[in-house]
Amino acid sequence: MRAVDLIERKRDGGELAPDEIRWLLGEYVAGRVPDYQMAAFLMAVYFRGMSELETVALTEVMAESGDRIDLSAIPGVKVDKHSTGGVGDTVTLILVPLMAAAGLVCAKLSGRALGHTGGTIDKFEAIPGVRTELSLPEIRAQAARIGAVIADHTAEVVPADRLLYELRDVTGTVPSLPLIASSVLSKKLAGGADAIVLDVKCGDGAFMRREEDARRLAETLVRVGNRLGKKFSALITAMDQPLGRMAGNALEVKQAIEVLRGEGPEDLREVTLALGAELLVLAGEASDPDEAQARLVKLIASGAAWRRFRELVSAQGGDVRAVEEPERLPRAAQVVEVASPASGYVEKLRAHEIGVAAGLLGAGREVKGAKVDPAAGVELVHKVGDEVEAGAPLARLHVGRPDRADEACRLVAAAYTIGSIRPRPSPLVLGRIA
Amino acid sequence: MRAVDLIERKRDGGELAPDEIRWLLGEYVAGRVPDYQMAAFLMAVYFRGMSELETVALTEVMAESGDRIDLSAIPGVKVDKHSTGGVGDTVTLILVPLMAAAGLVCAKLSGRALGHTGGTIDKFEAIPGVRTELSLPEIRAQAARIGAVIADHTAEVVPADRLLYELRDVTGTVPSLPLIASSVLSKKLAGGADAIVLDVKCGDGAFMRREEDARRLAETLVRVGNRLGKKFSALITAMDQPLGRMAGNALEVKQAIEVLRGEGPEDLREVTLALGAELLVLAGEASDPDEAQARLVKLIASGAAWRRFRELVSAQGGDVRAVEEPERLPRAAQVVEVASPASGYVEKLRAHEIGVAAGLLGAGREVKGAKVDPAAGVELVHKVGDEVEAGAPLARLHVGRPDRADEACRLVAAAYTIGSIRPRPSPLVLGRIA
Repeated sequence: MRAVDLIERKRDGGELAPDEIRWLLGEYVAGRVPDYQMAAFLMAVYFRGMSELETVALTEVMAESGDRIDLSAIPGVKVDKHSTGGVGDTVTLILVPLMAAAGLVCAKLSGRALGHTGGTIDKFEAIPGVRTELSLPEIRAQAARIGAVIADHTAEVVPADRLLYELRDVTGTVPSLPLIASSVLSKKLAGGADAIVLDVKCGDGAFMRREEDARRLAETLVRVGNRLGKKFSALITAMDQPLGRMAGNALEVKQAIEVLRGEGPEDLREVTLALGAELLVLAGEASDPDEAQARLVKLIASGAAWRRFRELVSAQGGDVRAVEEPERLPRAAQVVEVASPASGYVEKLRAHEIGVAAGLLGAGREVKGAKVDPAAGVELVHKVGDEVEAGAPLARLHVGRPDRADEACRLVAAAYTIGSIRPRPSPLVLGRIA
Repeated sequence: MRAVDLIERKRDGGELAPDEIRWLLGEYVAGRVPDYQMAAFLMAVYFRGMSELETVALTEVMAESGDRIDLSAIPGVKVDKHSTGGVGDTVTLILVPLMAAAGLVCAKLSGRALGHTGGTIDKFEAIPGVRTELSLPEIRAQAARIGAVIADHTAEVVPADRLLYELRDVTGTVPSLPLIASSVLSKKLAGGADAIVLDVKCGDGAFMRREEDARRLAETLVRVGNRLGKKFSALITAMDQPLGRMAGNALEVKQAIEVLRGEGPEDLREVTLALGAELLVLAGEASDPDEAQARLVKLIASGAAWRRFRELVSAQGGDVRAVEEPERLPRAAQVVEVASPASGYVEKLRAHEIGVAAGLLGAGREVKGAKVDPAAGVELVHKVGDEVEAGAPLARLHVGRPDRADEACRLVAAAYTIGSIRPRPSPLVLGRIA
């Protein structure tokens, strides 16, 4: 087999056999097919797409490229969740202990992705003492003991995805449905769960800005995912304005704690419950999403989810007092208010700009390996639909980098549109693919 | 500027500014843009094409990547020729001395391309003693003295094309019109000629099999070429059956000598005269192709072209006796006849199979740097339209590798279709783009 023949076949719109995809990726990971041939192949895939069979094969061979987390010896249904990413998306920190409280097992591998705001791992690590670099035996042991883990992706799990993603990132081949699908699904396949819910974000602050694109991605993910022998469902959720009221690591932890204590912003709570209900139904623990949601609401109200969160923090070495008294979490030395330029209603609040502002303040990382500032971020005092007075605070900036506070301030101000008409509320869950 | 942004723009169908193309190629040649980004860019170009402006910029920056042959101090119009390649294409060996005899200057850089049969350099080197690795001062001096040079592409001329071509070859990005055009034209631009004729081959034995593809390539070449400040014209010529009666290095030299002496196969003579006439017209030495052809016919009949060929051979160290008495050229130890399986007319003679057979016998090279056998090749006793008797020879194999003679024999036999109806003669020159 020669790589160039496979590249040319894909370029000309042909289909590769599973064995050919297996060979190509295997040789690439082994360093015998060079980056430049894989880059040309990926660009051909960008233009020609991949059949479902090809995508399944690619996903499987990626999942097999490293260690797999074997949770099969642990009783209970193993569940997992993936979000395509948005601003203020703190769902994982709430959902993992909530699922454990429901009797399921949720060992979640997350990342420290590059971006305006940190990844879930950055958020979790904003809690003093929390350790996320767990070995596979540690992950298994904690999952067996308390049913909840939030661990950093180890280099040994799906190394092929890491290699491919780094190449895609610099070759303009990120936005390809089959490549996105195989990246997401291979990690879920290697993660050892039986049932997985996918949160496909849609809107200004998401990777997919248009609902039809988000729907196509969700459909591809669920269709390919179901052929991999796991149970999948997907929700398409709105990401026009940030979810919740926080964009920043410790700020989002604080907010997750509020939701786990039965408080917190309604939108974050709603999306979390909807995703959790999907998992309960997939796991066979509830007959429909409504019944499932009712159970989850009770697990929050009873304090069971909150207790499980503290166990999770403690199991990973975190300071439980810092979550019981969130004022002990890292706090920015400087807080700056952004005032409303007019009286009226918040008509729009652009998630993307809020994310960029949070990044400027120190919440994200611009280059790989950089440290994030756990305390930095943006707190949204008002969101879409709120009535505001001229001069009243729209948002508060938790400043980690004072030299960038002015720019962040301008960005946050520009993210808001204040108008005279109260906008109608728009739905948070835009669709469900199962 | 970042390479990934330019890749993405091209991927999305946008146009790059000349400065951006200049930057991208410059950084690539300097090793600061890696192969994998260039590979992704080339595949995006395969799908999206390039505007004329982009192709002009790419060609110019490639031509500027190395030395340029400056012939401006030499009196007379400097001409050049490029063929997209076919089987039995010995035109260059005839055209270079013919142009010099007409008072023009033709310093031709050629290659030893990989392929079934050798490149022009391999053919010229079949003459004992001929040296083709000339320095730029040597090329200039010989062009000034006798108006004719056939030299190996030096590594210093258009190094960017060499780099890009090697990458395209292994990434499935060879068949892209703007990339082909910039590769061809950058070498012509660096070659120092004022007027250039392009021989775009079309048919079974050519890179372009369909006439419409050949026409599109010819049009692109001439359109882009004319924007580079040089005079260009192109002929589309038939390459269904081989040109002439020989496929092999010394065999083709022998045939070139025949044409230069006023003999030789009519088709090879016709294509050479047509291409030469284009150059005379472009150079302002004749008012139309008919007048130009009449002059060239006289230069052959008078022996002027033949004399110039001997000067060319002699100037490059070749043994003039070997061209005056071509039986002194390298000869194969073994000659095998391929007999006609039936009586009738040669209806088809597939150039591609003849080329592959010549390669099997030793005339070409399968890997870079391999030596060709100057004596090996295929001699075509009969061509399309000829009447043959069953058992009479169709072709003679000049065997360099006896272990492959049987396979070559089968291939040559299969290349012929013998039927009962005499096929109508078809035109050799299919079109002219100027």
